[in-house]
Amino acid sequence: MESLLQQSRALCPFLKRTSPATLRSLSTATRPSSSPGGGTISNLQVIARRCPIMSKALAVQSSRLGSAKAFGTVAVGGGCRANAVASVKAASAVPPGKKRLHTSASKEASVDQESYRKYERVHPTLSKTKTKTKSKSSHAAVKGAAVFPGPRPEVPATKKFDYDGFYNAELEKKHKDKSYRYFNNINRLAQEFPRAHMATPEEKVTVWCANDYLGMGRNPYVLKTMHDTLNQYGAGAGGTRNISGHNQHAVGLENTISKLHGKDGALVFGSCYVANDATLATLGSKLPDCVILSDSLNHASMIQGIRHSGSKKMVFRHNDLEDLEQKLASLPLSTPKIIAFESVYSMCGSIAPIEEICDLADKYGAITFLDEVHAVGLYGPHGAGVAEHLDFNVYASQDSTAPRSTKGTVMDRIDIITATLGKAYGCVGGYIAGSAPFVDAIRSLAPGFIFTTSLPPAVMAGAQTSINYQANYHRDRTLQQLHTRAVKSELSANNIPVIPNPSHIIPILVGDAEVAKKASDMLLQDYGIYVQAINYPTVPRGEERLRVTPTPGHTKPYRDHLVHSLGEVWERLAIRKTSDWKSAGGFLGVGVEDDAKNQPMWTDAQLGLHQGEDLESALKREFKAEAVEKQQMLRDLQLQEDLQKHRGRETGMAANSTVGVAA
Amino acid sequence: MESLLQQSRALCPFLKRTSPATLRSLSTATRPSSSPGGGTISNLQVIARRCPIMSKALAVQSSRLGSAKAFGTVAVGGGCRANAVASVKAASAVPPGKKRLHTSASKEASVDQESYRKYERVHPTLSKTKTKTKSKSSHAAVKGAAVFPGPRPEVPATKKFDYDGFYNAELEKKHKDKSYRYFNNINRLAQEFPRAHMATPEEKVTVWCANDYLGMGRNPYVLKTMHDTLNQYGAGAGGTRNISGHNQHAVGLENTISKLHGKDGALVFGSCYVANDATLATLGSKLPDCVILSDSLNHASMIQGIRHSGSKKMVFRHNDLEDLEQKLASLPLSTPKIIAFESVYSMCGSIAPIEEICDLADKYGAITFLDEVHAVGLYGPHGAGVAEHLDFNVYASQDSTAPRSTKGTVMDRIDIITATLGKAYGCVGGYIAGSAPFVDAIRSLAPGFIFTTSLPPAVMAGAQTSINYQANYHRDRTLQQLHTRAVKSELSANNIPVIPNPSHIIPILVGDAEVAKKASDMLLQDYGIYVQAINYPTVPRGEERLRVTPTPGHTKPYRDHLVHSLGEVWERLAIRKTSDWKSAGGFLGVGVEDDAKNQPMWTDAQLGLHQGEDLESALKREFKAEAVEKQQMLRDLQLQEDLQKHRGRETGMAANSTVGVAA
Repeated sequence: MESLLQQSRALCPFLKRTSPATLRSLSTATRPSSSPGGGTISNLQVIARRCPIMSKALAVQSSRLGSAKAFGTVAVGGGCRANAVASVKAASAVPPGKKRLHTSASKEASVDQESYRKYERVHPTLSKTKTKTKSKSSHAAVKGAAVFPGPRPEVPATKKFDYDGFYNAELEKKHKDKSYRYFNNINRLAQEFPRAHMATPEEKVTVWCANDYLGMGRNPYVLKTMHDTLNQYGAGAGGTRNISGHNQHAVGLENTISKLHGKDGALVFGSCYVANDATLATLGSKLPDCVILSDSLNHASMIQGIRHSGSKKMVFRHNDLEDLEQKLASLPLSTPKIIAFESVYSMCGSIAPIEEICDLADKYGAITFLDEVHAVGLYGPHGAGVAEHLDFNVYASQDSTAPRSTKGTVMDRIDIITATLGKAYGCVGGYIAGSAPFVDAIRSLAPGFIFTTSLPPAVMAGAQTSINYQANYHRDRTLQQLHTRAVKSELSANNIPVIPNPSHIIPILVGDAEVAKKASDMLLQDYGIYVQAINYPTVPRGEERLRVTPTPGHTKPYRDHLVHSLGEVWERLAIRKTSDWKSAGGFLGVGVEDDAKNQPMWTDAQLGLHQGEDLESALKREFKAEAVEKQQMLRDLQLQEDLQKHRGRETGMAANSTVGVAA
Repeated sequence: MESLLQQSRALCPFLKRTSPATLRSLSTATRPSSSPGGGTISNLQVIARRCPIMSKALAVQSSRLGSAKAFGTVAVGGGCRANAVASVKAASAVPPGKKRLHTSASKEASVDQESYRKYERVHPTLSKTKTKTKSKSSHAAVKGAAVFPGPRPEVPATKKFDYDGFYNAELEKKHKDKSYRYFNNINRLAQEFPRAHMATPEEKVTVWCANDYLGMGRNPYVLKTMHDTLNQYGAGAGGTRNISGHNQHAVGLENTISKLHGKDGALVFGSCYVANDATLATLGSKLPDCVILSDSLNHASMIQGIRHSGSKKMVFRHNDLEDLEQKLASLPLSTPKIIAFESVYSMCGSIAPIEEICDLADKYGAITFLDEVHAVGLYGPHGAGVAEHLDFNVYASQDSTAPRSTKGTVMDRIDIITATLGKAYGCVGGYIAGSAPFVDAIRSLAPGFIFTTSLPPAVMAGAQTSINYQANYHRDRTLQQLHTRAVKSELSANNIPVIPNPSHIIPILVGDAEVAKKASDMLLQDYGIYVQAINYPTVPRGEERLRVTPTPGHTKPYRDHLVHSLGEVWERLAIRKTSDWKSAGGFLGVGVEDDAKNQPMWTDAQLGLHQGEDLESALKREFKAEAVEKQQMLRDLQLQEDLQKHRGRETGMAANSTVGVAA
């Protein structure tokens, strides 16, 4: 083996300059989970697959061993690479035109008796009766291949790959490490928000973990728009944006979004996962030698987008400006750089230092890519997100119906904002907003935008109504924040370990996958409370948690029930409490003295709390105000509805239609 | 330069074994357009980026030249690579902890006077007035950086990258080569199908290019289901499938899909673009040393999925079984292989030899991945696609309400079927269907499934209704085929060049991007007909076309108007006719004697045509039958509706709701 290693080193510049220790660590460390096929191959294999020599050698090696583990395990010894290279040489000695890879070295090689089938029918006539015969010898198999007319390639005499066996093995791994996911059947009831029924309508539960943060999914204006649009424009868009799927709903929604964020342009995608993936992949691959600097807690969609871009990626420590600056400073000023980060990190609730990141971007010639998925609708006087919130007073003084002057604000300084229509806005879909040439470039270049059917007109129209509603009505988000404060403070008072943060997310630390699932199941079965356990890969192992998301609909009785139930579950399952974490030195901020950075993003003044007012009385006051306002809105809407029906009857619209029976 | 090349060759096994001619061709050929950033970098750069040495060298080189063209152009000379390697060595001589890349060699280096800004505010307090000062010296800039506390990294003294300039240059390229896309504002009217209005309700046009092939987007059953679901379950799903976004609608839809295709499992995605991308990326990256064999006309979503998988890709010539077999035979039997292809190719209307591909897959130990996006709803006695259609009689005899026995049929032999809910089914979304462990593995591993909000309940319920409707009612698809036949034969009679094929797609050859757009614009403006021009990158340059898609709603007056208008446009723009293509030797099958492979997939018998019956009389008969059936359906639906309202009134549902005003 040692001499093989020497040979390899002479051949390969990578092996030459890499120490044995590094090689060893590369060949044992596994690839992170963010990749579609995370967790099963070593980093050395990842590197090796990129090498024009080794990628081929790996295929041969693996076929010889009949297993995925060919390279990763043997390479620790160091000599396998040269060995594999030698096999490639042997294989390539076969003259061209008679392609095949030798497998004679394989100890497992055998003729597979079940490999070959013969079908008599020929495309495209279809009516003949089929006869399937499984031939029992490889000779018959070669005869059975009716397609290939030239000198028949010999079928290599090894076993076929066992696909279902492979899937089952992958699933078994997930079962073993408790990351296998069981979906709960949750049917959220629009008319009983935040209640849902399970598989049967009788089994009712309270939903405490949905991302319909403001209950816009049952907002009467949104629903009315959707019903009207369904009737008038049908169920689906009927094509991609370029081919009959572009319409007034897309135009209206994108105008509304660009106005919301004070940008020149916006573009709607099927989801924000696709928006992030497509945008980063396109930018990263188009911008020459682009480097993407990515927060270590970024969402999977961004991680995938960066990966798909093929560009260089530098991960900076979560919200760590020093680390980010060091990385930026290590790159030439002229190199295009994208700083990709989120405003509110969904699983821990932390908030990025957005303005300081803009400063660094300016200094080092980078552009900023800010994901406001968990912030739009919820922060800022018009719900435009944390970037708007950072200039609360500037924006609060603006009329939401006029185009906004945003010059110089944090939101203005952000180059690219991405967000969703599927969480606080209650519908589905995602978007990007930014400069006109940027948006037009993505519109023109991103396959994930170009080659996909547009969102249905009713969804786009509903989302537009939702954004406008939230831009003009603040009480849903202030009530949401007040409910969050109330739940956080009650849980803290009850020694339940909330991971501290300045946002509306309430992550409750469990720290074990199996226990987290047990707690979630117990809450559902014994207490009628639905809070999904958040396990790996959504959070790192050992940081498993329950993630609670209050809404304006989670009034006092619901909150009291939640706090009480969590207390009981924590007892019954003997889960560590805040005081336990504290004795252990604290973890993820739990059991640690409160940090200034965890002060709520929404200040008392912004929430309209009176000086020294107690939270419960403020809540009562706000709730009452909301009820009055909502009643007035409903009356207005009913009036509109009646007028519309009246007009419809007058013009006889119902009569001339063959499809107008619905609704 | 020559000595540098010698050095490089000694160092690099890739250069050593690659001929100068190959290197030259690699460095001039550009990357295909299918990648997100297609078209701008050479293949040599693509390969170089995968090399652990060269990827870094490229970054340095490019920063020195301040341009993307650093490597691709110089490498023709051969010596650049070693040169770049030398720069990396120089750069890495900087002691760790004081990271920076030397740029001293750059002739363009200069201090950028506009690089640095200073912001006084500190996150997260927000109320201070902002003062922006652009410092005029790099010294002041360093002072202004309040974040980095250690020894300040020197800002490299070159220009920042001009992002907007870059976007504009990319757009300019698209304008120049006529591939820039202008979207038409098309609002398809549910109650006047296939009509639509443009920006204003008065400007009416007939849509001839939507993929709502059967008009299911305005189907009264689908709309009724959607209205009911909206009212009961709201606008959005509220979360990912794992976190409150799994519900009875998802369960019901996936059961319906797996039944439709006779598979054990199915999984719904936000679109079939995502379904294809996520599934191929996951399989390709997970299956050890997987090779994906991809038809050369595969859709962008598959091309992306394969690219994202990082696995080896072999492109076989479109529908070419010999080429496919040669490629399969070149691989070890034990290597996992996926044959990825479509049933109906959307832009040319060709149909794959599905059964023969299954034979090859069996023989060489591959699995089949069949995209039925343009076939579901349209082929097969239950609308399950071409795979079902290939065993028409077997499936026609089956009750659509009972689980299907599909053992041994072509559909049964396909391992993975993917399709859309957004074309013939009239809604939005995509799916995969296959074996239970396969579906569970994708469900458990694919980030594009895991980390995205579920489709809205109303969309899933509507899609389920649509699938069931089409599984039980055949006349929409037979009428669609009859209308297709009629249009094709009338166009042929009028010398308009239809690219021949056996499917429902009518591609009309133009052969020039600018003329295709002109023809499309003229049809829209002068004739009120909307047919989008299909240009690069959707089809290769020189193969530009108009793509016409008849539906059951395109009755005789519409068809006559289309054929007449196309005739006039062809005259006015002097576009080549069938006879012109024929004189030129034929192109894409236009002007070539009819081929057996272009016989319609739907036979006369399957369409219920009587022996020797003329097409127009058959159409009249079928249309009449459809009208009678649809009227009966509407009466049934109205009855249901009335009953439901009556029951609603009895139970007082309307009264107890604060959100029930809509609809």
